[in-house]
Amino acid sequence: MTETAAVTKTLAQWAVGLKGSDIPEAVRAEGVRTFVNWLGCAVGGASHETVDRALDAVRLFTGPARAQVIGRADRLDELHAALVNGISSHVLDYDDTHLKTIIHPAGPVASAILAVSEGRGISGADFLTALIVGVEVECRIGNSVYPDHYDRGWHITGTAGVFGAAAATGRLLGLTEQQMTWALGIAATQSSGFREMFGTMCKSFHPGRAAQNGAMAAFLAKAGFDSSERAIEAPRGFANVMSTKQDYTEILGELGTRWEAALNSYKPFACGIVIHPAIDGCQQLREQLGDRVEAIAKVELTTHPLVLELTGKKTPKTGLEGKFSVYHAAAMALLHGDGSPTAFTDEAVRDPKVIALRDRVSATADTGIHEDAVKIAVTFNDGERITLDVAHAVGSLEKPLSNAAINEKFVRQSIPVIGEAATQRLLDAGWALETASDVGAITAMSAVSA
Amino acid sequence: MTETAAVTKTLAQWAVGLKGSDIPEAVRAEGVRTFVNWLGCAVGGASHETVDRALDAVRLFTGPARAQVIGRADRLDELHAALVNGISSHVLDYDDTHLKTIIHPAGPVASAILAVSEGRGISGADFLTALIVGVEVECRIGNSVYPDHYDRGWHITGTAGVFGAAAATGRLLGLTEQQMTWALGIAATQSSGFREMFGTMCKSFHPGRAAQNGAMAAFLAKAGFDSSERAIEAPRGFANVMSTKQDYTEILGELGTRWEAALNSYKPFACGIVIHPAIDGCQQLREQLGDRVEAIAKVELTTHPLVLELTGKKTPKTGLEGKFSVYHAAAMALLHGDGSPTAFTDEAVRDPKVIALRDRVSATADTGIHEDAVKIAVTFNDGERITLDVAHAVGSLEKPLSNAAINEKFVRQSIPVIGEAATQRLLDAGWALETASDVGAITAMSAVSA
Repeated sequence: MTETAAVTKTLAQWAVGLKGSDIPEAVRAEGVRTFVNWLGCAVGGASHETVDRALDAVRLFTGPARAQVIGRADRLDELHAALVNGISSHVLDYDDTHLKTIIHPAGPVASAILAVSEGRGISGADFLTALIVGVEVECRIGNSVYPDHYDRGWHITGTAGVFGAAAATGRLLGLTEQQMTWALGIAATQSSGFREMFGTMCKSFHPGRAAQNGAMAAFLAKAGFDSSERAIEAPRGFANVMSTKQDYTEILGELGTRWEAALNSYKPFACGIVIHPAIDGCQQLREQLGDRVEAIAKVELTTHPLVLELTGKKTPKTGLEGKFSVYHAAAMALLHGDGSPTAFTDEAVRDPKVIALRDRVSATADTGIHEDAVKIAVTFNDGERITLDVAHAVGSLEKPLSNAAINEKFVRQSIPVIGEAATQRLLDAGWALETASDVGAITAMSAVSA
Repeated sequence: MTETAAVTKTLAQWAVGLKGSDIPEAVRAEGVRTFVNWLGCAVGGASHETVDRALDAVRLFTGPARAQVIGRADRLDELHAALVNGISSHVLDYDDTHLKTIIHPAGPVASAILAVSEGRGISGADFLTALIVGVEVECRIGNSVYPDHYDRGWHITGTAGVFGAAAATGRLLGLTEQQMTWALGIAATQSSGFREMFGTMCKSFHPGRAAQNGAMAAFLAKAGFDSSERAIEAPRGFANVMSTKQDYTEILGELGTRWEAALNSYKPFACGIVIHPAIDGCQQLREQLGDRVEAIAKVELTTHPLVLELTGKKTPKTGLEGKFSVYHAAAMALLHGDGSPTAFTDEAVRDPKVIALRDRVSATADTGIHEDAVKIAVTFNDGERITLDVAHAVGSLEKPLSNAAINEKFVRQSIPVIGEAATQRLLDAGWALETASDVGAITAMSAVSA
């Protein structure tokens, strides 16, 4: 395939023409898991300070209150709801991951189309098709430029996510092929977000803004606002300007038979994916050890080098810093079996018992260890030594999170925000997505009273 | 200066700390010219189809109607008004130019702060200071990465403009240094817009969106939404991710003594700046020739090579294409003395008389000719030949547009949109900016009845 293929136009044609029945059952089922996982994360993150601050600004400008902010009392216009829900769903670093690109796919796409669906009488089946189309579009575009694009410093969840939001919203709005091509172009020319923002509120702003901007791209295109029809592949378009790699077969190859949307994975732990093997292993050890956890003299981790590069913080001071400390994460998993958001609070990081164990954890990088694996050796005060190898962390494609685990993750996040009864109703509605006659009814269940 | 200097923070401190009285009188005077020129362009572009289509989408989502859309009946929330006014002011390619970077400075900045000023009781003097701060910030950031950034394919008016809009809006909102640093960071991580969009509606979307996004960055920062404090200079920040050149002395050097805002220029003609010398020269010839224009056998232009590269279209079919045809532009200037938007309509381009003369225009590239210059030789049917050399086109820094010419440009654009009386009131109010007690009063004058 040459660079001059009509990449943008062909992708737009596919996104418009696809029927829900063209999507294999397994892919649709994965789409439902993607939705339920995202919904739980959006509720779970809704009471975060980042969301408070975004809402303080957004409330000044919101249009007609037609869309629910998940896990809050606010109703906003669709675009602002998309922004805020996108922030909520990513702010705990607990959402989903397309492992080939490190895109967190649902944030930009689901946030956009759930907000847009309200009041438009969209069925669950149509919503699910749009969700899958959006995820497919963003992950394929991500594949075409990854890793060069990411390595240069782009936060790919934002930069590729905006295309997914545009395509999915465009489906719901019934765009023509021409309009969908424009929507992808208007999305492209808003593609933005730096990895420099990691560790700040702007990290979760990226999927939120991608949702909002992608949705707006679709509405503009519907109104006849035009753009380049070669926004992805032109010499001065997305792939050439924002990446040194451009592989358009990743975008157009096997469209409708290879499903990137089926490769989504769900985080079992509320932190960067590289320390998941260590947490998984330490949780397993805890179950074996019981009270003997108290008698640990030292814990030795052997990990992929990236683990220390990204999460090598020895003495984290805040909950956020705790997410970048494999030592803290291992100690919390051994002591409390916890890798959920409560494992990464300021309180948890400052707990003297956790600190005492954390200080006994050491880690060695080994290029022979896969990113998805870890070797753990625990030595007790009496000199005994046991070891455990994790080949694939829970949540990986080889060991996917079960529906039951997704439920548990959902419930643990949601109950503190909207209570037990509403959590159960919302969770049930999430799993029943495909048979819902009106998706708008789902969001109302996530509201909290003012 | 090393890359590790606190570029973003230092720039934020300057933007917050500057007093209006620190700005030299000549720079303030240039700021007023910048404002008046921008205001006329925003009125002139307001009835363009691009604006109609943007408004069709925007009206669905607008918040409280607190800000006037210039030259229209609509009132929108401040951010959406900033978007639409930014589109209007750029859509005719008739606005202002910082020649060192080809940034069109006023669009992102003035569109943001005029909308935000309404209802906030902002004085003209404070508005002017904010305008100058915003223009200074965007042009300095532009200088730091130009030309590499532009050559890569970024539409610098959008990518640098968002910083200017954030800084100027931040001034009006009274941000602290910390908040201004965040605002620049939130702006940075939204920096976007491809040159691929030239020739489509997205070109003018870029300054509009930069105005809207930059303003939102300031409101978010005021609400405590944080970002990286090194968004411009970090290894994964703006300058490194979006450019191969990073010259931070352009941003921090001689702050407060070297004024990029004083280097703004105003287009006498509604098209790309490279064909301005040819139009200027042909207009001069027309004044000399009178009726003899009818007897021209051929017109030979000798131009900088860029003129043919960018505007070498021999047979334009639409008004927009006419902007990319030095042949059409020369013919219109010789026949009608016109380089205003009316010279670039579909009608003008299809006029048989214009086409007949256009076909007799030829152009030769010569690397010895400055970008700002042209040599013209006219041969008549009787064999006589006259020549004219333009060393610097009107509108250049060497031959700046006079206030009278800015007035004429304003009036020609504004009267067809808001009528003669309103045009005169608005123009007077523009020039009186510095003594206005409330800038909000100015925008009301630009409204048309529904």
